[in-house]
Amino acid sequence: MAARAPVVVLAPNSFKGSVSAADAAAAIAIGLRRVWPAAELRLCPLADGGEGTLDAVLAAGGQRRSARVSGAAGAAVDAAYGLIDQDTAVIESAQVVGLTDARSTAHPVEMRSTRGVGELLRLLLDAGVKQILAGLGGSSTNDGGAGLLAALGMKLLDTNARVIEPTPAGLAALARVDAGALDPRLRDTRITILSDVDNPLCGERGATAIFGPQKGVRPETIPAIDARLAHFARLAEAAVGRSAKDLPGAGAAGGLGFALLLLGGELRSGAEVIAEVQQLDTALEGADWLITGEGRSDRQTLLGKTPLIAARHAAAKAVPATLLSGGIDRDALPELSRHFAGCHSIVFGPTTLEACLIDAAGLLADCAEQLARTFAAARG
Amino acid sequence: MAARAPVVVLAPNSFKGSVSAADAAAAIAIGLRRVWPAAELRLCPLADGGEGTLDAVLAAGGQRRSARVSGAAGAAVDAAYGLIDQDTAVIESAQVVGLTDARSTAHPVEMRSTRGVGELLRLLLDAGVKQILAGLGGSSTNDGGAGLLAALGMKLLDTNARVIEPTPAGLAALARVDAGALDPRLRDTRITILSDVDNPLCGERGATAIFGPQKGVRPETIPAIDARLAHFARLAEAAVGRSAKDLPGAGAAGGLGFALLLLGGELRSGAEVIAEVQQLDTALEGADWLITGEGRSDRQTLLGKTPLIAARHAAAKAVPATLLSGGIDRDALPELSRHFAGCHSIVFGPTTLEACLIDAAGLLADCAEQLARTFAAARG
Repeated sequence: MAARAPVVVLAPNSFKGSVSAADAAAAIAIGLRRVWPAAELRLCPLADGGEGTLDAVLAAGGQRRSARVSGAAGAAVDAAYGLIDQDTAVIESAQVVGLTDARSTAHPVEMRSTRGVGELLRLLLDAGVKQILAGLGGSSTNDGGAGLLAALGMKLLDTNARVIEPTPAGLAALARVDAGALDPRLRDTRITILSDVDNPLCGERGATAIFGPQKGVRPETIPAIDARLAHFARLAEAAVGRSAKDLPGAGAAGGLGFALLLLGGELRSGAEVIAEVQQLDTALEGADWLITGEGRSDRQTLLGKTPLIAARHAAAKAVPATLLSGGIDRDALPELSRHFAGCHSIVFGPTTLEACLIDAAGLLADCAEQLARTFAAARG
Repeated sequence: MAARAPVVVLAPNSFKGSVSAADAAAAIAIGLRRVWPAAELRLCPLADGGEGTLDAVLAAGGQRRSARVSGAAGAAVDAAYGLIDQDTAVIESAQVVGLTDARSTAHPVEMRSTRGVGELLRLLLDAGVKQILAGLGGSSTNDGGAGLLAALGMKLLDTNARVIEPTPAGLAALARVDAGALDPRLRDTRITILSDVDNPLCGERGATAIFGPQKGVRPETIPAIDARLAHFARLAEAAVGRSAKDLPGAGAAGGLGFALLLLGGELRSGAEVIAEVQQLDTALEGADWLITGEGRSDRQTLLGKTPLIAARHAAAKAVPATLLSGGIDRDALPELSRHFAGCHSIVFGPTTLEACLIDAAGLLADCAEQLARTFAAARG
């Protein structure tokens, strides 16, 4: 091993159900250090805009804060968010209206609202934030973002001009939308919507039809709820003077995407934005190898998931990218092989998923070490 | 990937319960060809003297033959053997007295004999063979090799000078051994005993105590059978004029080791001899990488198993050796890592042993391909 110690970029996603992206990067680093004590390891934990986005961003710097806002079912929750700098905040919808109580029968999806996400945005505006990265994903709501807009000043009224509840149930009585009192500071706020969902708000590819059932929407109620969201969206668009419901991503997080698009938000690939925030391209300068990873790899990985984004950035700098994964669908290997210089599972033999989840960090370290030994041998 | 296509030596053991060493090497080659169509692949399937030895040797050349001889329980069996050249044959004790009927109640271990192995040796002598590689392992017998010696002319007699059965049961009546009629051609025959067992014939580390129970020897009969083998061995040693029962390997294959040592055979590491037969050192000349493999890797691998022998030969030529394995005991990784440039399991995620055994060749090809991609990336 005459070659100098290499420069390696460690840019994994989280391994769902086991380790965060930051912990995954740290575990890989432990393995590589056993082979190359002097290696320059550049840790760039990634995320796709969904769960783990906040952790990944904060792993690179910034401050973790918490705010007490309304949860999906109304009860107060302490939602974590991040301040990257004076002007820029990152939020994660799952922190406010996450899936934890998605199937609650006491508070069914028809009664849930994204009001708390709007409350959080208002707090950020109060704090002088000018740019917001909003990670969507893992929501338990399907309110079309009505709650968020209501919390930011949009008036949702029934035929008697009474304020309605911004929930799928409440929207049944919606007759008029008044955007006059919408927080004026939003006009000067740049909202970046991080999502890998490109569904529109309504219709057969809409939020209710596609993501509703997993949140507890009963199949027979899909048409009615979808129609309520469409009605609300048309009125809201007219009131604001902007179209949004048919845009890609409007259907993300039960329609939170629509609400943020209506406020002028820009939908971007979560993985791309996080790669930017983590300065992945800078990390790749002069690097010899990039290691990325995720909990499970299959054809979905090829649809712009985090490891693929990492591989693309690496390819642009002619840095080989290797994938470590909890499990790999072998049928996808021919396609995955076009993007990765090796796709390797972190398991060391026949085992159960449970055993892997319990010791993912240890497996990652050991697997990274063994791969590094092979890599080092090839470098000579 | 500007580097020239590499020269890779493929030197796996068999993957027990799934693919032979030759098939494993072929599967690895398939995977590597997907990455390097022009690579020079040198296939050296290995074995340790036990099951798979014959296949591994014949994969390199020579002729597969078959002879009808007595099986362990007396019924005729067609035993495969190999002729490497005019003078040299390779046999495998498991082909004649293998474990298939080890627990037969109709023919318990007390009634089984290695006579058929002696018959096979006599046929080889008739054919003019001067050198015999005898792979021991996987026997169902525990007769101290009495059957083999009897078939080659040694007379085993009771107090009335009647010929006894060369079995654990028959040896109870042994009173005298006459080696006068032992086939004289054996003196000019070089016998190489391939085994990784170094146990003596008798005593607490002897064949009966250590390997007897798995062949059906009942614990309470161990002392009596061990004493019979010791008595037989003393008489046989005196008759031949050579000591053998306390030599390492005398306890291999239920005492077949003793019989062959008594005939002047030389015990050698099966893996070392097969590596020699396969001309592993020649294959390693100018090679860039060696890939070895086995079904399961743990601390036992470090005790001179085939992959370790392959790694040692590679190290002597400064060729990095990588291990592919069905499953790896992670506790052994620190020690394994001293010998291998990467230890990798062929599985791609949580799975069952059964699934791996069914598709070992496919897994090997896919795993070798992915590793080759990483290896190629490192070479630049």
